[in-house]
Amino acid sequence: MSLEDVLSRIDADLPAATERLMELLRIRSISTDPAYAADCDAAADWLVADLASIGIDAAKRPTPGHPMVTGHHPGDGRHLLFYGHYDVQPVDPISLWHHDPFDPVIEDTPKGKVIRGRGASDDKGQLMTFVEACRAWKAVHGTLPVQLTFFFEGEEESGSPSLVPFMEENSKELTADIALICDTGLFDADTPGIVTMLRGMLQEELTITGPDRDLHSGFYGGAAINPARVLARIIAGLHDETGRITVPGFYDGVAELPGQLRSQWDNLGFDADGFLSSVGLSEPAGEQGRTPLEMVWSRPTCEVNGLWSGYQGDGFKTVLPSQAHAKISFRLVGTQDPLEIRRAFRAMVEDQLPADCTVDWKDHGASPASVMSIDDPAFDLARHALTPEWPNPAAYVGAGGSIPVAGYFKSILGMDSMLIGFAKDDDQIHSPNEKYDLISFHRGIRSWARILQALSR
Amino acid sequence: MSLEDVLSRIDADLPAATERLMELLRIRSISTDPAYAADCDAAADWLVADLASIGIDAAKRPTPGHPMVTGHHPGDGRHLLFYGHYDVQPVDPISLWHHDPFDPVIEDTPKGKVIRGRGASDDKGQLMTFVEACRAWKAVHGTLPVQLTFFFEGEEESGSPSLVPFMEENSKELTADIALICDTGLFDADTPGIVTMLRGMLQEELTITGPDRDLHSGFYGGAAINPARVLARIIAGLHDETGRITVPGFYDGVAELPGQLRSQWDNLGFDADGFLSSVGLSEPAGEQGRTPLEMVWSRPTCEVNGLWSGYQGDGFKTVLPSQAHAKISFRLVGTQDPLEIRRAFRAMVEDQLPADCTVDWKDHGASPASVMSIDDPAFDLARHALTPEWPNPAAYVGAGGSIPVAGYFKSILGMDSMLIGFAKDDDQIHSPNEKYDLISFHRGIRSWARILQALSR
Repeated sequence: MSLEDVLSRIDADLPAATERLMELLRIRSISTDPAYAADCDAAADWLVADLASIGIDAAKRPTPGHPMVTGHHPGDGRHLLFYGHYDVQPVDPISLWHHDPFDPVIEDTPKGKVIRGRGASDDKGQLMTFVEACRAWKAVHGTLPVQLTFFFEGEEESGSPSLVPFMEENSKELTADIALICDTGLFDADTPGIVTMLRGMLQEELTITGPDRDLHSGFYGGAAINPARVLARIIAGLHDETGRITVPGFYDGVAELPGQLRSQWDNLGFDADGFLSSVGLSEPAGEQGRTPLEMVWSRPTCEVNGLWSGYQGDGFKTVLPSQAHAKISFRLVGTQDPLEIRRAFRAMVEDQLPADCTVDWKDHGASPASVMSIDDPAFDLARHALTPEWPNPAAYVGAGGSIPVAGYFKSILGMDSMLIGFAKDDDQIHSPNEKYDLISFHRGIRSWARILQALSR
Repeated sequence: MSLEDVLSRIDADLPAATERLMELLRIRSISTDPAYAADCDAAADWLVADLASIGIDAAKRPTPGHPMVTGHHPGDGRHLLFYGHYDVQPVDPISLWHHDPFDPVIEDTPKGKVIRGRGASDDKGQLMTFVEACRAWKAVHGTLPVQLTFFFEGEEESGSPSLVPFMEENSKELTADIALICDTGLFDADTPGIVTMLRGMLQEELTITGPDRDLHSGFYGGAAINPARVLARIIAGLHDETGRITVPGFYDGVAELPGQLRSQWDNLGFDADGFLSSVGLSEPAGEQGRTPLEMVWSRPTCEVNGLWSGYQGDGFKTVLPSQAHAKISFRLVGTQDPLEIRRAFRAMVEDQLPADCTVDWKDHGASPASVMSIDDPAFDLARHALTPEWPNPAAYVGAGGSIPVAGYFKSILGMDSMLIGFAKDDDQIHSPNEKYDLISFHRGIRSWARILQALSR
């Protein structure tokens, strides 16, 4: 089957493909906020209808949370599963957006056209690159060159509570030869990357309670324990002076980078200064003696993602707060055990509590890191298929972001994952004014068309 | 002029006096939030009308912020100035109120009737004890036994930005022999207190900025500085292991308690265990080696009153925040210099900032502590006047809360202040479900009637 016809079809259909993506972006599918549950459902319906429109046997599948979308297309040879997620991050602080995050626009920028809106890059735009490649294959050839299962999730941005049970209940249906995941970035604008190492994640929320009510800091200040001070002291103690994390046993399972991979990474020409300066920074702030690429690809972290206590409004309120809260996440690598780290972290915090303080915990998910086996010839087939589409050859890279589904594909379904994505570092995912370059979208669709052909062999 | 007739009149008029207070409590005069500016203005209008109704020459006086209310009544002998504030604290967290905070109610409780609502105790209820005493004097005798100036402020809960300029511009009008302030509490339910030591206050807000935007903690976590961690480390370092504050020079001007006052305080029978257990605590958390009464009356403090960074909503957002914020206040004693402490605190924070972090400051007020001279016979006259009204004699006490106006009366107008109030420890001022005991209101009015007579001599 001719690839050139498919690529031409993709080029001709780009305006329509872009309009379809805009439709999907208008759906406010914020999974972490229960107020948007109906929107998540609507996004799932939209995807089912879109897959059905290209002849995929698609269905919305209920879960205790937001629904999954599955789709099946028969075929010979290699059986692929494609994964993406239709849910998006919250949009706060809304005041920093230049447009309504859910009224996407095409913008001309000095670096080219971009699609601006929440989810444009993470992950609706990326998900649609694959769907559009399939649409073009179907339009030109009436079929697809492989056996294919689609699997779209709506809880990726909220800890994926339904993912593991759904995979376990539907393991036969979902097991394929290999998974394709489009939720990562280009190594740089000219160089696609295939991710072979993914950090895992442990997400914890804690509430420290001291006095049983908010107090007047004049009447009680000095005598009453202040939970905001207790929390600050706990957070301050999570890293030592060299940037290492102090949770006991935290580094069990963290290996040094193999020499071969280290030299490959060194040769990538990563612009560490540009990486930092693009967000207003000049110095890497992680563990002493590590390169920035190591810090974000192969070293574990502990970050404060949220912090709140007392009065935050205009003016001043001399309250001595009853409670202080934090959301803290750990990025995990190698064979670090998220459940063991959760236990050690919680015990460490509890050991540090002064008299009259208690801590309550909320669990927001835990997933181990993934390290892919690149012996499967599919990896090299895909890597070479990307070469004619991009200025530079594709590279095997690490990824700092956590994509827990890759770990579950391995542990539950026995599949490795090939993570290929077209996002750029400046896409501002999870931030205001998220965008996806039109060239990422266009070349992304073409890249998947090429990979589908390569994997049909 | 007969005091007994005035006291009888007060008893008979209590239901009407309570209803007048309820009217004032319904006005949402939250001074710290600009959304309530019109309500503050309405509260000032209400007070002007109420003073005028008892024959006081009253006026609303504009300021760049919320208006002042002044009133004058001629008379012979001692000239008193009475101060109170008509503004109130914010009401958040609103979900913890059992009623609308601005729809006050009279409740029967196991300890007696209370007036429930924001400002019931701090300071509308206390302010009205004095106004009602004057109303009764006027009703019975057609005049007051002293020369009197009323001075009501509407910015006490938001740092009093207009207070000093207004006092300076109107110093001749406002200067009296001594000021009476009703914004403090009883020592205990049976023992009125005259405050002779008041802590000062320095209120600071800081914002630490690291990256120039919120980042994805997967892409940047480990390499990018996290301002929430920087802020936590700074806060954690503000106290040493013994509970002492580490700001350089902080304890300059902090004297040990004179032996005479210490023994008087020791004899007060202060129930430290009850003080702490009433808010769910068992151990004093301040400086080692100090009693709880010292901690709240005569020792300086540093407290976190507000703290926020990153994502605080439902679920989890793996954001690496661009900024972290805190509201921090210092209670000051003796001759501590608030401006010098502000300078030292800011310098200390700035010295601790790592590379790529900046700090921005917001000034929310600074006022020194006050120590009254009790040689003025007015102090003993007032103390003895209180005796027949209460089960126990009045005591000279300290106060942990800051009442900056007392310091300004001294420094700008050359007046000492006599701080006499009837609030109880469990009034939940600055907290949800604030209340004022009906007996505080009733005995408070009667107490002022007695003091007015005593000070007419």
